[in-house]
Amino acid sequence: MKAILFDLDETIIHDDAVGDAAYLAAASLAAPLGADPARLAHDAEAVAERLWAAGPYFEYSNRIGHSATEGLWAGYAYGDHPAIAGLRAWTKPFRTQIWAEALALQGIAAEPALPEAMAARFFAARRHYPLYPEIEGLLAHLKAQGYLLGIVTNGVPDLQREKIAGCSVSPLFDAAIVSGEIDCGKPAPGIFAHICRELGVAPAECVMVGDNPARDVAGAIAARMKSVWVQRNNRIPSDRYPASLSCTDLSAMIPWLTSLSS
Amino acid sequence: MKAILFDLDETIIHDDAVGDAAYLAAASLAAPLGADPARLAHDAEAVAERLWAAGPYFEYSNRIGHSATEGLWAGYAYGDHPAIAGLRAWTKPFRTQIWAEALALQGIAAEPALPEAMAARFFAARRHYPLYPEIEGLLAHLKAQGYLLGIVTNGVPDLQREKIAGCSVSPLFDAAIVSGEIDCGKPAPGIFAHICRELGVAPAECVMVGDNPARDVAGAIAARMKSVWVQRNNRIPSDRYPASLSCTDLSAMIPWLTSLSS
Repeated sequence: MKAILFDLDETIIHDDAVGDAAYLAAASLAAPLGADPARLAHDAEAVAERLWAAGPYFEYSNRIGHSATEGLWAGYAYGDHPAIAGLRAWTKPFRTQIWAEALALQGIAAEPALPEAMAARFFAARRHYPLYPEIEGLLAHLKAQGYLLGIVTNGVPDLQREKIAGCSVSPLFDAAIVSGEIDCGKPAPGIFAHICRELGVAPAECVMVGDNPARDVAGAIAARMKSVWVQRNNRIPSDRYPASLSCTDLSAMIPWLTSLSS
Repeated sequence: MKAILFDLDETIIHDDAVGDAAYLAAASLAAPLGADPARLAHDAEAVAERLWAAGPYFEYSNRIGHSATEGLWAGYAYGDHPAIAGLRAWTKPFRTQIWAEALALQGIAAEPALPEAMAARFFAARRHYPLYPEIEGLLAHLKAQGYLLGIVTNGVPDLQREKIAGCSVSPLFDAAIVSGEIDCGKPAPGIFAHICRELGVAPAECVMVGDNPARDVAGAIAARMKSVWVQRNNRIPSDRYPASLSCTDLSAMIPWLTSLSS
């Protein structure tokens, strides 16, 4: 093996947990009005999912892998596809509407300034990129062993680039590609071919590592790469896309890679 | 409330997971000789626990809260207590012996250089201090709300100071105390009185946050502080030391603190 390719969200960095905390931080602004912050956070997320699925950019977002919760804090600052500019405009009212609806569900009448403040609180509170605990040690080990390291991530360009830049291990990577930059998301073969070209390696020389069986493992299988599936957030293992290695902690890759090369 | 006090290991930063990865990284050095790295890692840890408990510094280490696995990577660079210098000398052969014994358990005859290389690999691979995912957002929130922030941690001085310095959120804290610096560990009241003096607050104005019921919560109760217990690594909740708030994600503190102040 020459190169190890990583998915980003929930493989290298936490995503759901930081989103949950941001919903809660925003919801706590309504506590003085008698709101139940935990219920408010839950309802706002449910409303976001519903509006997102009914909106005009759902098909595009599904294709590149961009979620309702990401729509609450993406900058949409650049990207060639016209949907990027479309999302920039569409998410403006979306970000306050989810809080207005969640407050209404609890029968709380609030000035328009409150949902706006809650949207702003979410937008600020979500900008953290904590690593999974084994990542720093694992990447240092792989780097010392001479592997090339890559990131293959689905999402809109500026948000994924911000996460990569913010997560403190980006200097260890030799290349990174975001689905929204080439309008081609995992599991489609194009994005895997792209990273191979950038790294100058063949698919058979790569291991793809990720938490999503249908995106990361299925994509690796189709691209004829070895694959590592890591179980995060108690996700149920997939029978349909069997990985070369399955684990709950990516440190298990260390002896596994040793056994591959001996 | 004026001040929020945090335990360090398994409350702010991951400890066990990084230790597990370091055992595995060291064990993988013996894979070319036919060793099973996962079993080797497990056996080395078990041998470490046994030798540690039979050694001359077990009582001291228990009192200040210093573990066998920490004995594999502490520098013992400073500290007034004579046990610190004692541990510096005692851990030198200890660090290689655990690997020699674990190799012997698999019937692997190795040159003395191998256990030494494994000890060195552990020593280097263990030096990561990954944050729990909610910590950065939580501390930023608490800081913005005007709370004083403190760390109350058990352990030997230089190791705990290294972890604090290495974990990237240390600039947010107003004070930190390590049990080994005052020869008094949680749950003893002295260490809680010490941090109150440093921060200029009364115990009734403090919340103590930690994962260990018998050290963090019991200590807070005895010191007449409010307490938050966070469940990490599926630790079983304690009936004996009931916390003011129990949670699996410290983001739950955000609405809880709001409710306390309203």
